Amino acid sequence: MSDQRHDTRFDRFVDSYAERTKGMRVSAVRALFAVANRPEIVSLAGGMPNIKDLPLESIASSMGQMVAENGTQVMQYGSGQGELQLREQILDVMALEGIQAHPDDIVITAGSQQGLDLVTRIFCDPGDVILAESPSYVGALGTFLSYQAEVVHVAGDDDGLDPEALRETSRRLKAEGKRIKFLYTIPNYSNPSGVTQPLERRRQVLEVCEAEQILLVEDNPYGLLSLDADPVPAMRSLDQNVIYLGSFSKTFAPGFRVGWVLAPHAVREKLVLAQESATLCPPVFSQFAVSNYLSNHDWKHQITVFKDMYRERRDAMLEELAEHMPDGATWTKPAGGFFVWVTLPEGIDSQAMLPRGVDARVAFVPGAAFYADGGGARNVRLSYCFPTADRIRLGVQRFADVIRNELEVMSIFGVHVSPTHLRRAPGPGPNLS
Amino acid sequence: MSDQRHDTRFDRFVDSYAERTKGMRVSAVRALFAVANRPEIVSLAGGMPNIKDLPLESIASSMGQMVAENGTQVMQYGSGQGELQLREQILDVMALEGIQAHPDDIVITAGSQQGLDLVTRIFCDPGDVILAESPSYVGALGTFLSYQAEVVHVAGDDDGLDPEALRETSRRLKAEGKRIKFLYTIPNYSNPSGVTQPLERRRQVLEVCEAEQILLVEDNPYGLLSLDADPVPAMRSLDQNVIYLGSFSKTFAPGFRVGWVLAPHAVREKLVLAQESATLCPPVFSQFAVSNYLSNHDWKHQITVFKDMYRERRDAMLEELAEHMPDGATWTKPAGGFFVWVTLPEGIDSQAMLPRGVDARVAFVPGAAFYADGGGARNVRLSYCFPTADRIRLGVQRFADVIRNELEVMSIFGVHVSPTHLRRAPGPGPNLS
Repeated sequence: MSDQRHDTRFDRFVDSYAERTKGMRVSAVRALFAVANRPEIVSLAGGMPNIKDLPLESIASSMGQMVAENGTQVMQYGSGQGELQLREQILDVMALEGIQAHPDDIVITAGSQQGLDLVTRIFCDPGDVILAESPSYVGALGTFLSYQAEVVHVAGDDDGLDPEALRETSRRLKAEGKRIKFLYTIPNYSNPSGVTQPLERRRQVLEVCEAEQILLVEDNPYGLLSLDADPVPAMRSLDQNVIYLGSFSKTFAPGFRVGWVLAPHAVREKLVLAQESATLCPPVFSQFAVSNYLSNHDWKHQITVFKDMYRERRDAMLEELAEHMPDGATWTKPAGGFFVWVTLPEGIDSQAMLPRGVDARVAFVPGAAFYADGGGARNVRLSYCFPTADRIRLGVQRFADVIRNELEVMSIFGVHVSPTHLRRAPGPGPNLS
Repeated sequence: MSDQRHDTRFDRFVDSYAERTKGMRVSAVRALFAVANRPEIVSLAGGMPNIKDLPLESIASSMGQMVAENGTQVMQYGSGQGELQLREQILDVMALEGIQAHPDDIVITAGSQQGLDLVTRIFCDPGDVILAESPSYVGALGTFLSYQAEVVHVAGDDDGLDPEALRETSRRLKAEGKRIKFLYTIPNYSNPSGVTQPLERRRQVLEVCEAEQILLVEDNPYGLLSLDADPVPAMRSLDQNVIYLGSFSKTFAPGFRVGWVLAPHAVREKLVLAQESATLCPPVFSQFAVSNYLSNHDWKHQITVFKDMYRERRDAMLEELAEHMPDGATWTKPAGGFFVWVTLPEGIDSQAMLPRGVDARVAFVPGAAFYADGGGARNVRLSYCFPTADRIRLGVQRFADVIRNELEVMSIFGVHVSPTHLRRAPGPGPNLS
């Protein structure tokens, strides 16, 4: 056997893969990151938090002490549900958004992405429907599709999900005999739209969910990064049956991969079983490291430091957009979080424009990544989380120039019509060149 | 809505769960751990490594330095495949068992349990068959069942898997129209049996896999913990198409949850997509912590320290078993790893005996946990990894006393026949009391 080396580049297993692998695709965002990291490019593409303001010396010191004094515990196997000490501290974090809960109803996850994975795992059979905002988080869509769920987008407006559209979509799908498993929403500073649901809208959405018997999954990674006013109460604070996903990735640091799910008791039990099957236990050292940070550092003050930094960057982006964007483009004005959602002038396809953006040394994420149904051709997600304000200004100027060039090319040669654009905007026919 | 609090203990979602949740059960091992942790009980049940001999002060110091100097990298998001620096170091670890590979064919996982999860995820549709040793690792069985795979055990002997039984099982299943997705094996110091496949046996198993076109998944958490002789070359060193699962949980520490999968290139690509969907990226801080440990500490020497410690414990267990076990009991003599597999005298049901073991202040894992088909009723897994040698001696004495009591009760009142025992050993009928 040792002499019979096969060329492992040839995929001899091609007929063996599970059906679900057909839903697993390289995300547009990953392919983009390879170019976006080049230093000459201003990347308005990534969603990486800027963690350089963390008190590294002090974190290093308290973590070192933790290892020296308590290493055999923090480096050992732990509970499948996650460490109780951290689950109790998470109650304090969630209280800032009005949530009251019991630590026994929390399951720690390897980042809130794993929360999405486990929730989908316990609820979705192939063909089940998940309702999502329009647009919705690319990483969630990837997970839903990997479980062979069907994602149906629900229309929204500047206040987030439209409750009437939700009701109509639910009724239509039920009439078609489809099984809706849950509604997935990011009510605060949504990724990618930057939109926030006001309190009244949250109540309306929850009422429709109650009437239609739809489970609501609230994903809230950005909730504490409110830049203009106090956070709106979480949807979980209004209804205990909401499944709530939380994360330390944006309020502390993403590299620990520590998030959590707060769920009704019966659901929580299934999540723990799923977690044990997936990883035995979520990262133990990471949990103690986060817990240690919460105990030994002024984490609330650190969040205000982060907010001041992100506010400056958001303001820089919005100012520059207002100054440089051509007529016909619109964009959201986020009250928190990391993202601005741009709608390009009629006729421009953001995916087709991307190479010209990279040429002009600015990177962004085309809107199509945030739709499971081919939507988003006219949209772009811009992020202001990672580059400095000066770089953001430069990036937005380049971005505006790229759009202006597209418009100029269109006016000379006729509208560039991509297949997705044709499907989405089949109105009065542009002159095909 | 805020006034309409529901009692979340009532599972209103009972009809919503995915089919796969029916395969998720609370493991016997988890239920056991609650009692096994009581200090008066000698636990021969757990599989926790004993990490108290790690150089904690020195680890604390180099980790602190890593955070202070490089915190913004080690606490940031990372690659879905895992950090290149660690993947290169893993090559050195695998070289100790004869494996040559390329770092691009490695995917880091949140412990090798997640490796099992991702491999099953990309290969198994509901109803697909996974072949496994008899007995096999309880955590793997749980994962396989959670993907609605059918586990079929293949008979073995003191040298591990029986190649002829493997061939016959494969042909029988194919004749039944079943799809075999892979053979799962722990060739070194298997959990739970403690058995090791010699080199010649490995070649025979691989030949049958090649002839029958069965993918082999080699799980090797204990390979470097050889207590008597040098490790046998890994099956992956004999055939590049083997999917290999590795772990730092036993050679360093489990709390970081860092394992890896080495896979043929095409499979590796799918694993990265699955990893991104599951967690975005494996625990980044943990990966740098492990990498830092490998760079700054004599990790090979540390493994010899661990081996000396486990050897003393293994010897204590085997000596005590030889001295105290009643006639009719047999057990394996592991050349490494953590576990001894006991076959109890005819007529004793290990699951039924467990409460009497706990009464006598000794905990063990009944063999049924390691079978997906109701087998293992006469078996027990004993572990020597965590308690000291003195505690192990005490535990084995108590364990032998419990068995002796069972035999005495049987001789007075007639054989205790459990339903599983009846099914497995339906020979000359015992006198039912």
